[in-house]
Amino acid sequence: MTVQTATLSNGFRIVTEHMPGLQSASLGIWVCAGGRHERTEQNGIAHFLEHMAFKGTKTRSALQIAEAIEDVGGYINAYTSREVTAYYARVLAADTPLALEVIADILRNPVFEPSEIEVERHVILQEIGQAHDTPDDVIFDWLQEQAYPDQPLGRTILGETDRVNSFDRDDLLRFVGEHYGPEQLILSAAGAVDHDSIVAQAKALFGDMPSRPGDAALPGTFRGGESRQEKQLEQAHMALAFEAPGYRDPAFYTAQVYAIALGGGMSSRLFQEIREKRGLCYTIFAQSGAYADTGMTTIYAGTSGKEVADLALLTIDEMKRAADDMSAAEVDRARAQMKAGLLMGLESPAARAERMARMMQIWGKVPPIAETVARIDAVTLDKVRTFAEAQASQAPLALSLYGPVAQAPDLAQLQARRAA
Amino acid sequence: MTVQTATLSNGFRIVTEHMPGLQSASLGIWVCAGGRHERTEQNGIAHFLEHMAFKGTKTRSALQIAEAIEDVGGYINAYTSREVTAYYARVLAADTPLALEVIADILRNPVFEPSEIEVERHVILQEIGQAHDTPDDVIFDWLQEQAYPDQPLGRTILGETDRVNSFDRDDLLRFVGEHYGPEQLILSAAGAVDHDSIVAQAKALFGDMPSRPGDAALPGTFRGGESRQEKQLEQAHMALAFEAPGYRDPAFYTAQVYAIALGGGMSSRLFQEIREKRGLCYTIFAQSGAYADTGMTTIYAGTSGKEVADLALLTIDEMKRAADDMSAAEVDRARAQMKAGLLMGLESPAARAERMARMMQIWGKVPPIAETVARIDAVTLDKVRTFAEAQASQAPLALSLYGPVAQAPDLAQLQARRAA
Repeated sequence: MTVQTATLSNGFRIVTEHMPGLQSASLGIWVCAGGRHERTEQNGIAHFLEHMAFKGTKTRSALQIAEAIEDVGGYINAYTSREVTAYYARVLAADTPLALEVIADILRNPVFEPSEIEVERHVILQEIGQAHDTPDDVIFDWLQEQAYPDQPLGRTILGETDRVNSFDRDDLLRFVGEHYGPEQLILSAAGAVDHDSIVAQAKALFGDMPSRPGDAALPGTFRGGESRQEKQLEQAHMALAFEAPGYRDPAFYTAQVYAIALGGGMSSRLFQEIREKRGLCYTIFAQSGAYADTGMTTIYAGTSGKEVADLALLTIDEMKRAADDMSAAEVDRARAQMKAGLLMGLESPAARAERMARMMQIWGKVPPIAETVARIDAVTLDKVRTFAEAQASQAPLALSLYGPVAQAPDLAQLQARRAA
Repeated sequence: MTVQTATLSNGFRIVTEHMPGLQSASLGIWVCAGGRHERTEQNGIAHFLEHMAFKGTKTRSALQIAEAIEDVGGYINAYTSREVTAYYARVLAADTPLALEVIADILRNPVFEPSEIEVERHVILQEIGQAHDTPDDVIFDWLQEQAYPDQPLGRTILGETDRVNSFDRDDLLRFVGEHYGPEQLILSAAGAVDHDSIVAQAKALFGDMPSRPGDAALPGTFRGGESRQEKQLEQAHMALAFEAPGYRDPAFYTAQVYAIALGGGMSSRLFQEIREKRGLCYTIFAQSGAYADTGMTTIYAGTSGKEVADLALLTIDEMKRAADDMSAAEVDRARAQMKAGLLMGLESPAARAERMARMMQIWGKVPPIAETVARIDAVTLDKVRTFAEAQASQAPLALSLYGPVAQAPDLAQLQARRAA
């Protein structure tokens, strides 16, 4: 399998990978703009825009957009994250040109009809309500806010109700003007695709866009803090985070391996100590997420209100212990999990298109899988221990608690225990 | 790609499919026993057993089970449904024999150590708490209870807290004795696998099990009813169901096509009328699920407390309208979605192994994909309309409401509107 790239004269980038044996393709446009590119008063507009893309173009109604893809059995969707807004489709091989044409249409020709904006505003308010009804969803928004307070990176993707209520057509057009130039667009396609055909079609669909560099996002600074919301729930939900390296940091893979060893699977320390030995949780995990310039290692668990204090203190203890006695076997295993997970995941065209788009955004190229594997293999026990020590001492912590959390320790208590 | 099957002399069944080009395999044992095989006093035991499988064998501790798979970067997990309990793994090709050996070990040699039962009981109680904190999870349990009241098929998989508190080692052993004989086990493997090697290994691992036919589950009878739980939530969650054909019913594919046209994608009636035109919901869908002898078409949506009455009535109206004016174009599109979804899904070895296991359970063989596609193609507009008419008239309905649902109509009102 070979990754091929191309760049149109206006800066629009294309990356494809033909995967032999597949009958389908996954393709999309990744726009290098998301929640962190919003100014304070714009918070939620990237996501609003993603919704409005599907509400009608100059030549297609919302229904016609959906029918165009679903008539051929395809699937079209989109998501907004902090750094990217993606519009993507899954189709059988022969329908790849159709899918690309529809995605180009919704990106280039949206009408943002005011009456449709009103309807979609209501849909987004429902989406916000749904997120608030899902404790293990909303708690991560609150954690993010504590990790990056008063910064674009700390705000929610969906935006606050008041702001969502205030957006109008001009706000949408302004964000498009600021961030949807051809230099910010990456077309990524994987599966039963032909590079040359896709490049030719992309040239026809996007080649005439005037070049227009986008504004870079403000850097993110992990500061930490505490959020606690009492609510009558069955479980006390806890999320903890500390800073991790960004994508471009050489320590990125060290943080990933550390998070897997700490709480990435059934053999991990948090799973074994807190679930398997004590039965305190059903769900407990650690994972390390990254942005261009910063990242977060996040731990989540849910338990009863009576046990949340134990859970929080034991979690801190495991972070400390990881710095003291992480073993070579655990690092080996975490590396094996990361490598195998990468290889197995990439058997899916959707995962492959996603990875290529992200790599193009971060590095401007797609490193071969073998290079990524080599970087994972280069993570040593020493590196993981050094990283663990930094986290187990004075680094800032973010804490978010939700549910029957009256008995949960506060951030100062957790920090004191960590320093003890 | 070719499906191959084998049956050991004790009735243990094996199904494999080699998928060229893959470097990984997905394999597992599907046990033909789940929640609906439990007697009233056993409710929750199938799921408890699934948890205990990972808590230690004669030669491996819980940690050693996890390490065995994760040392090679693999992933092991299990789930319990109403008709099946599955234990499965994802591994790189070379580790397929290891994964099969570990799965055989946890199935054949679990120790059910009493102290581990106590710890795991606590984990399951946390899992029940987590489900209760997730409105769009728990509402489907309540819906199931209304659909099949006082029947094994209507009970939850997790079981009630009191029952989970009462289970002991003998209860686990009894359920194993009743339902884990070799005739109830199906080994399914897809991806980079070799049929003959898997059969030889299965013979060594499972060939000595004494034959022991399992008890069939009681038939399920869809009766309908209403469940309403007021709670202070952001959204009013509504789930509605009516009976659909079981897997073995020739009308199975008609019900699937109907559900897709009604609420299976962005071009579906429910999505267009209720979300796109009116903005009443973020999430709304219909889907048709099947058991061996019965099934349920389910509609779910979430909206505000003020709008739940509109939502419920509009949903009924759409069911009625589907019986009146479903078009050939909609049926064509739903068929295309179902076929393409099948083909794209089967590019994943996990989906393929799952499908083969389920087909073996239901049909005792794996129909070729072309046969399934032909059955989908055989669904006509007439068949869909006839099915829709039956649902839009007198057939029993199940209704479940959760959240700020004071203004929601009751079941009698919905039935009256349907009959109007």
